[in-house]
Amino acid sequence: MARKKSYHYRKRHKPGTAPGTLTPVQNAPAPIIHVISYGPDQFSEAKLDGAGKIRDYIGKAPVTWVNVDVLDRVQDIQAIGEAFGLHSLALEDTVNVHQRPKMEDYESNIYTVCRMANDNNGEIDLEQISIFMGKGFVVSFQEAPGDCWTPLRDRLRKGGNKRLMTSGSDYLLYALLDAVIDDYFPLLEKLGDRLDALEVRVLECPDKAAMIEIQKIKKALHTIRHAIWPMRESVGQIMNHESLVDQGTLVFLRDCQDHVVQVLDIVESYRERISGLMDIYLSSMSNRLNEVMRFLAVISTIFMPLTFIVGVYGMNFDTSVSHYNMPELEYPYGYPVIMALMLGIAIAMVVFFYRAGWFGNPGHDDDQRKGEQEER
Amino acid sequence: MARKKSYHYRKRHKPGTAPGTLTPVQNAPAPIIHVISYGPDQFSEAKLDGAGKIRDYIGKAPVTWVNVDVLDRVQDIQAIGEAFGLHSLALEDTVNVHQRPKMEDYESNIYTVCRMANDNNGEIDLEQISIFMGKGFVVSFQEAPGDCWTPLRDRLRKGGNKRLMTSGSDYLLYALLDAVIDDYFPLLEKLGDRLDALEVRVLECPDKAAMIEIQKIKKALHTIRHAIWPMRESVGQIMNHESLVDQGTLVFLRDCQDHVVQVLDIVESYRERISGLMDIYLSSMSNRLNEVMRFLAVISTIFMPLTFIVGVYGMNFDTSVSHYNMPELEYPYGYPVIMALMLGIAIAMVVFFYRAGWFGNPGHDDDQRKGEQEER
Amino acid sequence: MARKKSYHYRKRHKPGTAPGTLTPVQNAPAPIIHVISYGPDQFSEAKLDGAGKIRDYIGKAPVTWVNVDVLDRVQDIQAIGEAFGLHSLALEDTVNVHQRPKMEDYESNIYTVCRMANDNNGEIDLEQISIFMGKGFVVSFQEAPGDCWTPLRDRLRKGGNKRLMTSGSDYLLYALLDAVIDDYFPLLEKLGDRLDALEVRVLECPDKAAMIEIQKIKKALHTIRHAIWPMRESVGQIMNHESLVDQGTLVFLRDCQDHVVQVLDIVESYRERISGLMDIYLSSMSNRLNEVMRFLAVISTIFMPLTFIVGVYGMNFDTSVSHYNMPELEYPYGYPVIMALMLGIAIAMVVFFYRAGWFGNPGHDDDQRKGEQEER
Amino acid sequence: MARKKSYHYRKRHKPGTAPGTLTPVQNAPAPIIHVISYGPDQFSEAKLDGAGKIRDYIGKAPVTWVNVDVLDRVQDIQAIGEAFGLHSLALEDTVNVHQRPKMEDYESNIYTVCRMANDNNGEIDLEQISIFMGKGFVVSFQEAPGDCWTPLRDRLRKGGNKRLMTSGSDYLLYALLDAVIDDYFPLLEKLGDRLDALEVRVLECPDKAAMIEIQKIKKALHTIRHAIWPMRESVGQIMNHESLVDQGTLVFLRDCQDHVVQVLDIVESYRERISGLMDIYLSSMSNRLNEVMRFLAVISTIFMPLTFIVGVYGMNFDTSVSHYNMPELEYPYGYPVIMALMLGIAIAMVVFFYRAGWFGNPGHDDDQRKGEQEER
Amino acid sequence: MARKKSYHYRKRHKPGTAPGTLTPVQNAPAPIIHVISYGPDQFSEAKLDGAGKIRDYIGKAPVTWVNVDVLDRVQDIQAIGEAFGLHSLALEDTVNVHQRPKMEDYESNIYTVCRMANDNNGEIDLEQISIFMGKGFVVSFQEAPGDCWTPLRDRLRKGGNKRLMTSGSDYLLYALLDAVIDDYFPLLEKLGDRLDALEVRVLECPDKAAMIEIQKIKKALHTIRHAIWPMRESVGQIMNHESLVDQGTLVFLRDCQDHVVQVLDIVESYRERISGLMDIYLSSMSNRLNEVMRFLAVISTIFMPLTFIVGVYGMNFDTSVSHYNMPELEYPYGYPVIMALMLGIAIAMVVFFYRAGWFGNPGHDDDQRKGEQEER
Repeated sequence: MARKKSYHYRKRHKPGTAPGTLTPVQNAPAPIIHVISYGPDQFSEAKLDGAGKIRDYIGKAPVTWVNVDVLDRVQDIQAIGEAFGLHSLALEDTVNVHQRPKMEDYESNIYTVCRMANDNNGEIDLEQISIFMGKGFVVSFQEAPGDCWTPLRDRLRKGGNKRLMTSGSDYLLYALLDAVIDDYFPLLEKLGDRLDALEVRVLECPDKAAMIEIQKIKKALHTIRHAIWPMRESVGQIMNHESLVDQGTLVFLRDCQDHVVQVLDIVESYRERISGLMDIYLSSMSNRLNEVMRFLAVISTIFMPLTFIVGVYGMNFDTSVSHYNMPELEYPYGYPVIMALMLGIAIAMVVFFYRAGWFGNPGHDDDQRKGEQEER
Repeated sequence: MARKKSYHYRKRHKPGTAPGTLTPVQNAPAPIIHVISYGPDQFSEAKLDGAGKIRDYIGKAPVTWVNVDVLDRVQDIQAIGEAFGLHSLALEDTVNVHQRPKMEDYESNIYTVCRMANDNNGEIDLEQISIFMGKGFVVSFQEAPGDCWTPLRDRLRKGGNKRLMTSGSDYLLYALLDAVIDDYFPLLEKLGDRLDALEVRVLECPDKAAMIEIQKIKKALHTIRHAIWPMRESVGQIMNHESLVDQGTLVFLRDCQDHVVQVLDIVESYRERISGLMDIYLSSMSNRLNEVMRFLAVISTIFMPLTFIVGVYGMNFDTSVSHYNMPELEYPYGYPVIMALMLGIAIAMVVFFYRAGWFGNPGHDDDQRKGEQEER
Repeated sequence: MARKKSYHYRKRHKPGTAPGTLTPVQNAPAPIIHVISYGPDQFSEAKLDGAGKIRDYIGKAPVTWVNVDVLDRVQDIQAIGEAFGLHSLALEDTVNVHQRPKMEDYESNIYTVCRMANDNNGEIDLEQISIFMGKGFVVSFQEAPGDCWTPLRDRLRKGGNKRLMTSGSDYLLYALLDAVIDDYFPLLEKLGDRLDALEVRVLECPDKAAMIEIQKIKKALHTIRHAIWPMRESVGQIMNHESLVDQGTLVFLRDCQDHVVQVLDIVESYRERISGLMDIYLSSMSNRLNEVMRFLAVISTIFMPLTFIVGVYGMNFDTSVSHYNMPELEYPYGYPVIMALMLGIAIAMVVFFYRAGWFGNPGHDDDQRKGEQEER
Repeated sequence: MARKKSYHYRKRHKPGTAPGTLTPVQNAPAPIIHVISYGPDQFSEAKLDGAGKIRDYIGKAPVTWVNVDVLDRVQDIQAIGEAFGLHSLALEDTVNVHQRPKMEDYESNIYTVCRMANDNNGEIDLEQISIFMGKGFVVSFQEAPGDCWTPLRDRLRKGGNKRLMTSGSDYLLYALLDAVIDDYFPLLEKLGDRLDALEVRVLECPDKAAMIEIQKIKKALHTIRHAIWPMRESVGQIMNHESLVDQGTLVFLRDCQDHVVQVLDIVESYRERISGLMDIYLSSMSNRLNEVMRFLAVISTIFMPLTFIVGVYGMNFDTSVSHYNMPELEYPYGYPVIMALMLGIAIAMVVFFYRAGWFGNPGHDDDQRKGEQEER
Repeated sequence: MARKKSYHYRKRHKPGTAPGTLTPVQNAPAPIIHVISYGPDQFSEAKLDGAGKIRDYIGKAPVTWVNVDVLDRVQDIQAIGEAFGLHSLALEDTVNVHQRPKMEDYESNIYTVCRMANDNNGEIDLEQISIFMGKGFVVSFQEAPGDCWTPLRDRLRKGGNKRLMTSGSDYLLYALLDAVIDDYFPLLEKLGDRLDALEVRVLECPDKAAMIEIQKIKKALHTIRHAIWPMRESVGQIMNHESLVDQGTLVFLRDCQDHVVQVLDIVESYRERISGLMDIYLSSMSNRLNEVMRFLAVISTIFMPLTFIVGVYGMNFDTSVSHYNMPELEYPYGYPVIMALMLGIAIAMVVFFYRAGWFGNPGHDDDQRKGEQEER
């Protein structure tokens, strides 16, 4: 849970500083800059250590895609921003990685924020991806190396996907967003598996660990929903940007938006299942309490009268004073008769409780539960 | 629950593959293609094994309806798509059968996804139906053979329904959608019967099986709502498509939309009933716990004092030392007096608890419950 | 609960039959047709056995009101429909009495569905009323004889209500709808009385019957809301119909819509009260459990130590071996001292529990509850 | 609770009577009519017993304000209505005092309904205020004498408020509405005080009376919300009425609407607090049950083994037969050793439970609770 | 909680007083007036004791910022208002500090209300900030001295921030609002830390103090949401004000609005966490009750039969009458056999309960809980 906090407040600057300020950081690790330039019949790739020579790569091919990992050395980010004419407020949002997904229109370019999902041992880790798209270029910023765009890079390298190679930067933006969104599906699949397992567990053994697992999945779903919900709108805003987005790309962006809605749909149906699980959990706990109490009541009801009876015959009334005083003690068959009487009482009670459907003793219930499982 | 997962992820392609890709599958079962061509005064029917000769059947009659079952051999689906000029993104959605109901406008044709409901032993099974409608043709794709369109086919064969025979492909699209939607009513009727049975059961015996049944019905309702809700909008979008949908078909599509709203209405009222059932369930459980505890308290309150009294007269104080020491033991009527006293205490307590309205012993409660049932 | 089902599925035709189909039914009871023709200075009334002569009554007076009870003989309904030029889809909806309230515009006439409420021993019975209104005529269809329009008919017969006699069919439509809506108020008044009674009951004795009554009222409110909610929109749609609805009738229809909102308002405030009742119910149950458990704990805490003490002096240690072995048994005042000690312990505990505010014994609680009642 | 019903149904006429009907009532108390006429440099005031001479006061000053208390003698209300040209449907709504706040536009005048709040021993009493505003006149109807407009009348009499004296009837309407709305704030203040008191009480002693108080406050908030919510819209509608409302009055009406939103805001935050109180209440009850049960478990766990031990040495095995039979009974220190053993067991258990944090005995808990109170 | 009340009602004037009235208050503390005048190449600063000389500072520089602390001496507030031409209704709202955040357009100037947050020992304290912005001036009113604008003042003094110095009063308004909103982030960070701590606590020890902390955080979140939610709209309204707000400031105001949405976003995700905490809390309590009851049931089930057995052999049947009467008492190994039997019964039961998974004794549970903690 510690990282939740870091997610929201990482590097947030102090209240009161001037807007659009990027304070240079010394000794910070250099960004990893990866430049891909391509066109219908060309492809070149380069890795840069700093932002110094970035201007050499601009405009050399129909589309230039600059990807930047590690955002700590702020002065390099600023240099890249200046090379492509990016707005300082947008660069500030790029570096302060606590933005919600959004699309902002800066006339000469589009600024989009989305979140790439990583499964971090069952918790969802969200990395802020900032993408600038302008005429002929796409600049993407990631918090750390490693992403879901490797298949896309391979397709660029192989050059087999004709539409990708011949389209402009708007299609590349679509391809990047689509890869990010499609990456949520395997995550949801894993959550679905955990839900399936949880459903069996909550019915069989509603303990605290099950409750914690319910809450974890709920939190994961909330995180995903939070990251995806605003993308419905931001993809729509990209579609409405007439000057930078080509007519032919619209149908692909619509497909992308459709995937966003699919993710939200699955999240919604999982949330419904979680709320059903909570109901089952609470009623299972209530059931167990009922069973325990019924068990206790049965035991008490059987043994309290018996203990009273043996107590009666443990009284010390003086039988020699009169034969009204506990004459039973001196009957030859007194003891076996009393024992038989008590056995009869016990049996009668067990039969009574059984008929009243009270038998919630744990062994019995286990069998019943197995039966239900099979029936399902 | 296993199939829920398969519903959402069946055949979803790997994140990062190019959009609109249909990878050919070798050794897959061939699709079952069924072509019906009809017009005001003609009707012909054919079954094809593969997509090879599909082009021979196009444009031979005012309306051509091609129905395709089994979508595994992707190359055949693609061939059909090319024959009718269908968009590759739409074909991809047709094959990846995890779409939500929607309507997409591809200028020369309309692409609609809906879901056909099957009752699979109490769980709702949803099959994706993709329908393309263009000038003079309707192409429908189903995951598996068997559907709810047999009465429609019979009407076409008999030719008696004049409006159907003389109208264009838009009316056929309406007829197909209407049949799919109307097929939900019998399903809902079954769910209603299960709800009626559950209502009785929850009052009589609120056990874990009842809880599971509640959750199952809830899930079924959720599934239906999920499948039907987006159709309200997509039917509306079809109605707004001026170039492909005739003025005269509008009143029928409005009727179809009305049926969608009716299904949603029934689902909503069932959900209300389910939530009432949950309330009854939880309060019944609480009631039972109250009864058990009251029963235990009554038993304890009666026997604890009695056991204490018999314990008193089981003490071994030496009566010979002084006559302050338990002189009762040597009274001639000591024993019967004590027994009478204890009987009196027990009777007084029972009367007290009875008057205080505590008697929640199971037998009594059973009678009461029967009375309530009858009153209802 | 049996009729709930019948409400939704009565006479629903099989999925797949052609739309607008009215299959003739032989041996069905004939409809009861009641024709009223009136104008500023005329009034005539007639009862017909079948639809045969219906055409003789059309157009004889400024306004013709045809009311049809019993809809089983479908061929007669169809004949009436043809006489007035009603659309076959609307007639189908008239006969399949499971429509939600709606208004449909068929150019030459308006088709409205609403629901007339009947109190059926505490459950709300809804009868579908279909009304067609065109230039000079109103045709209303009811499932069964008996309605809330008797005062309206009397006003027509007496002719005293000048606006009614001189206005067209649109004012008659308003009058019919207004009577149907106003009929909900007495029903709500009854429900209000039941809520008042329930409020007292839930506080005094939160048993299963109270829970069932809560659920019944909830269901009744849901049924009413369901029947009235769509009327807000449909009355609005009638008001927007310029060619058939006169300017002067608008203010009356607005008043009618206001009544619809009033009904919804009362339903909403009753729902709020019901949800408050559920809270009281659950907390009352919880309270009772607390009381029972405290009572049990008090009894156990008093008698367990006492029983232990008398057990101690029931031990058989041999006092003759040494005077360490239970010398108390041979003290002359041993018995009275021990008895006094136990009495002291019991009193001390009672005082302790009393001060700790634990006394939730049922008699005490009863008094307290009465006090609260009076305070309210 | 009895008046709730009367609020909704007071004087509602029978379903089926003609709309706009005001049946004259004989022997009803006469209305109290109070006429104020004023202008920039004039002011006159009069009290009338009946509606007979009302026409003498119309048009004598720039603004005429007629206030009518007691609405039983319907014929007088009708006479006043005719004098000012008010619509019969609006007069019907004035007399049937179960309207929700609304604004209706009758061309020559505006009809507004609002609700004046009175605190009736902790329950909110709502009186219907109907106000008609036309060129040069305002007519207000109240159910009973006594209102919140005394300060306004005083300002008119003193003539000091220049804007009030020189503005038209639209400003008077604003002043009347503003006084009604501002009157809700003291009521809310009282409810806030009750909430503060309740918060302390629910933590200290979550009994049934606290639950009832929660429900009462909830109902009061619901009543206020119900009465104020529609005013947001109706004040907005007044602002949009161009012909009767002056441009200069708009900024005041906007301020009035702002007050409506403030009332709703406070109600909303109180509702949030109430729902938090319910959570605290339920968890406090659950806490108490936990404490009681832990207490019972501790007592039982301590005394059950001890009672068993003393029972063992109360057995009557014949020690003379063999020295395997209870030789402890004849040990010289048998009794003190057993007593010490039992004391040891008891102490060990107390220590064990204490360490396990089980001590929820009531005295301990009281102290703890006080501590928490202070901490807050 | 006492200040909650004061927040809503501080200084609210009596219902019925004339609108826009500011009653002069004698002996009230004088306001602290701080005037900053600046432009591209000038800066001057002054502190005034009263409103007397305020007019001397107007229009001396491109932008004049007057900040007023302490609003008690109403006549001074009025004098400032007159100097800048502010509307009396807006001044009334400035003094009655119970306004919700809003923006009002008074043609020549904009009136904005927002709320500055202070952390008052864990409770959120909200101070009303009223800001008037006109051509060349900004007037801000605060309830008390001390604010979050010190960094902004420093930037003005140093003159380093070029855009700030060269822009007009609209940019200053943006800078003020941005500082107020950014000040919420550290508050939220603190709440996040408290939530983290609470999450651990609720799992380990769900006591009343945890419940109170949950409610406190909930209230704090509600307060923040309440204060921030309306700002989304009011910042939007400022952006739409074309005559006073410059085109170049829009992108900054959009950024400011983005921050508002971020605050709301975090609040929303915290609320989700709080509701999860409530679920965990309630189920933890329920778990504990289950454990206690199971523990009690185990103890009772073990000792009740044993106590019964030793009771049997404490009966006083006369063994000398016949050898049917308790012959066991005279067997040489009677005592050890019975003791062994009882030990066997006890062990068997413990094994049985262990296998049935009942062991919810507190020590065991503690270990288990620690395990879960580590697993997390």
